[in-house]
Amino acid sequence: MVKLQGFKTLTNVDEALKTWLATWQTKEPQQVLLPLTAVANVSGRILAEDVIATDDLPCFNRSAMDGYAIRYQDSIGASQSNFVKLTIVDTDNITIGQAKQVWTGNPLPEGADAVVMIENTERNGNTLTIQNALTPYINVIQHGEDVKKDQIVAKKGTRLNPYNIGLAAALGYSTLKVYKKPTIAIIATGNELVTIGTQADKHQIYDSNKIILTAMCQELGAEIIDFGIVKDNTDDIAEKISQALKTADALITTGGTSVGGLDFVPDTINKIGKPGVIAHGLALRPAMPTGVAVLNNKPIMILSGNPVASIIGFEVFGRPAICRLLGLNKTEKRPVLKATLTRKIPGILGRKTYARVLVKLRMNELIVEPVSTKGPSSISTMTQSNGYVIIPENCEGIKEGETVIVHMFNNNIEDEA
Amino acid sequence: MVKLQGFKTLTNVDEALKTWLATWQTKEPQQVLLPLTAVANVSGRILAEDVIATDDLPCFNRSAMDGYAIRYQDSIGASQSNFVKLTIVDTDNITIGQAKQVWTGNPLPEGADAVVMIENTERNGNTLTIQNALTPYINVIQHGEDVKKDQIVAKKGTRLNPYNIGLAAALGYSTLKVYKKPTIAIIATGNELVTIGTQADKHQIYDSNKIILTAMCQELGAEIIDFGIVKDNTDDIAEKISQALKTADALITTGGTSVGGLDFVPDTINKIGKPGVIAHGLALRPAMPTGVAVLNNKPIMILSGNPVASIIGFEVFGRPAICRLLGLNKTEKRPVLKATLTRKIPGILGRKTYARVLVKLRMNELIVEPVSTKGPSSISTMTQSNGYVIIPENCEGIKEGETVIVHMFNNNIEDEA
Repeated sequence: MVKLQGFKTLTNVDEALKTWLATWQTKEPQQVLLPLTAVANVSGRILAEDVIATDDLPCFNRSAMDGYAIRYQDSIGASQSNFVKLTIVDTDNITIGQAKQVWTGNPLPEGADAVVMIENTERNGNTLTIQNALTPYINVIQHGEDVKKDQIVAKKGTRLNPYNIGLAAALGYSTLKVYKKPTIAIIATGNELVTIGTQADKHQIYDSNKIILTAMCQELGAEIIDFGIVKDNTDDIAEKISQALKTADALITTGGTSVGGLDFVPDTINKIGKPGVIAHGLALRPAMPTGVAVLNNKPIMILSGNPVASIIGFEVFGRPAICRLLGLNKTEKRPVLKATLTRKIPGILGRKTYARVLVKLRMNELIVEPVSTKGPSSISTMTQSNGYVIIPENCEGIKEGETVIVHMFNNNIEDEA
Repeated sequence: MVKLQGFKTLTNVDEALKTWLATWQTKEPQQVLLPLTAVANVSGRILAEDVIATDDLPCFNRSAMDGYAIRYQDSIGASQSNFVKLTIVDTDNITIGQAKQVWTGNPLPEGADAVVMIENTERNGNTLTIQNALTPYINVIQHGEDVKKDQIVAKKGTRLNPYNIGLAAALGYSTLKVYKKPTIAIIATGNELVTIGTQADKHQIYDSNKIILTAMCQELGAEIIDFGIVKDNTDDIAEKISQALKTADALITTGGTSVGGLDFVPDTINKIGKPGVIAHGLALRPAMPTGVAVLNNKPIMILSGNPVASIIGFEVFGRPAICRLLGLNKTEKRPVLKATLTRKIPGILGRKTYARVLVKLRMNELIVEPVSTKGPSSISTMTQSNGYVIIPENCEGIKEGETVIVHMFNNNIEDEA
């Protein structure tokens, strides 16, 4: 017997997210030791250890200039009318009245605490003449100036980027412990779907959702296990879901999640086990038919078969879930910016709206145009926009001329001027 | 004979960039055909062809709801007091007085132009009763609604992201032509440098610049060829540079670029050939000793040995050069945001300053704190900041309380509240 009605009630998005995230627990992911020299594999990974300075950085006083290392006290009183003469030596330590030639980056000899720039000196044999007084540690990069011994320079749970990788390398790390990538199983459901790379018949459509969601998961740093396409059939769906949950850390389904005649996914999940579906039917636009579930302590994102709805459903639920599975300290957000709305964006009372927009530069000001919403199946609205604006549940819309916060998923901002 | 003086004149950064970019030409990069199913290899690549719709998307009228496909004209006049009865058929086309059951996503039968939602109908055997009048194409996703045949949905020179890949897949593309990744050779110079993974002696330092610049190039989508570390020695430097230019599309050097006793890189480049160094000594802070050169029509970025200076030098010159080599339509910029400065940032008249800053959320407002600048050798200033503010050459600094534009290199914005 098919259910013939739409969702009777819609669950508040923030509440659904909170309840769902509280229904499954994560333990610390496994660790992997990676050599820094294979930096392409290290970039973007999540640190599984604190990076701690085992020594000062730099660990010795270095010259910041080409010149002569001296004791600053020897220069006291030096001026254009009162030259000071020092003896140039080539030893690892200097004493009163001595100087040692240094190039930028060279260690200072013991006893030296200042560097006089080469252009401010005159050399005659082993005699150095200086005409200006130095202050202590001038032109010296002091040991520990960058980082002090025992300082934590990057915390466990941080995403590695060129700069914290570089700092670890400078501190002498040759490997870093990172977390193993979480695995996300993905299943597309729908009788009408065909796999990319095959030839669609007249009334079939290509399974583009899976490729979009795969790319979005990979952008965050998760690995995808593709469980293919399954027909709208409870038994097949149940079997695939059970298989997927044996293998992966989390599951994404796309399609079959409304309350129509062929929308079997939520009920099938509930038949497999407890707690099953946590929320289904959300006060969200697009992506109302989104659901979230938990089985075997693994999160399940039940996403719409409509491409844009599946993208927004993933944005709202998939992003925080995957950030947690990655071992990140907190959910990574999209870059945001503020800009002025050129046309009204309508909201719907009682539903949180993710409105796709295009941010542009117009006469040096950032402006935001709503992208016409042809409905949740139009992928082209995602390629025509570069961000989204969130309109809260209690808001009928945002007026032209107002400043809005845009969450950018693409930093390609065109300059109209 | 060593040169003993600093830069006599500093070149304006924007002028140097413009001249340099005009001194070398790029031809269109080679193409590579990639299957979309290996989406991890496709994401982030640059399109080498326009993606054109070979058909409407969708290419047939689809039902947006579970219900019955009918001719809207048959529903005219239907109301709660005036039921309309239709005959349910199971054929690929319908005519006057007929209806066909459809699930969400199903193709509409020929002749149908509207869908009545299942919950607004009553069925008795093959008789369907409807009580409301429909408008043309209600609950129908019309063919071409998302994309029209022959429309260009992604232009050559665009970077592929989850959404434009998904749209290409939906249009039936199973492969995409992308550009071959450009190869960037990288050479670190300096007697004091040791390779990561080996043990540094007391006065040696780890070659961290190379790993940072490698990761930055890879983030943009270029491939790196590591030419290792070379001593401060003109012959060795010349040999490495010549080797590198035979293999790679561009060259980055780091170190040996000031005008000191061991700064051999710019002069060596000039000895190898013409046009050689285009600019050296820039009105830039940090990264004054940066240079740009061209040999064999290949761009050379002569970056400082100081980590932060090399990063900023790369940001200013490497980013636009690599975007061009990638085949991108234009230089990709960092995400920007506007925020309020909590403390003055000093500028230097006559030098364009890239000041590292930390953007935070304080009571729901974005604020910007300058990160103490310990000098161009302190990598930790990069890991403590999440963006930079550009202070123009003609500006002595920016006052506390002013709104500034921040170029974000890390979207990790802490909420203080």
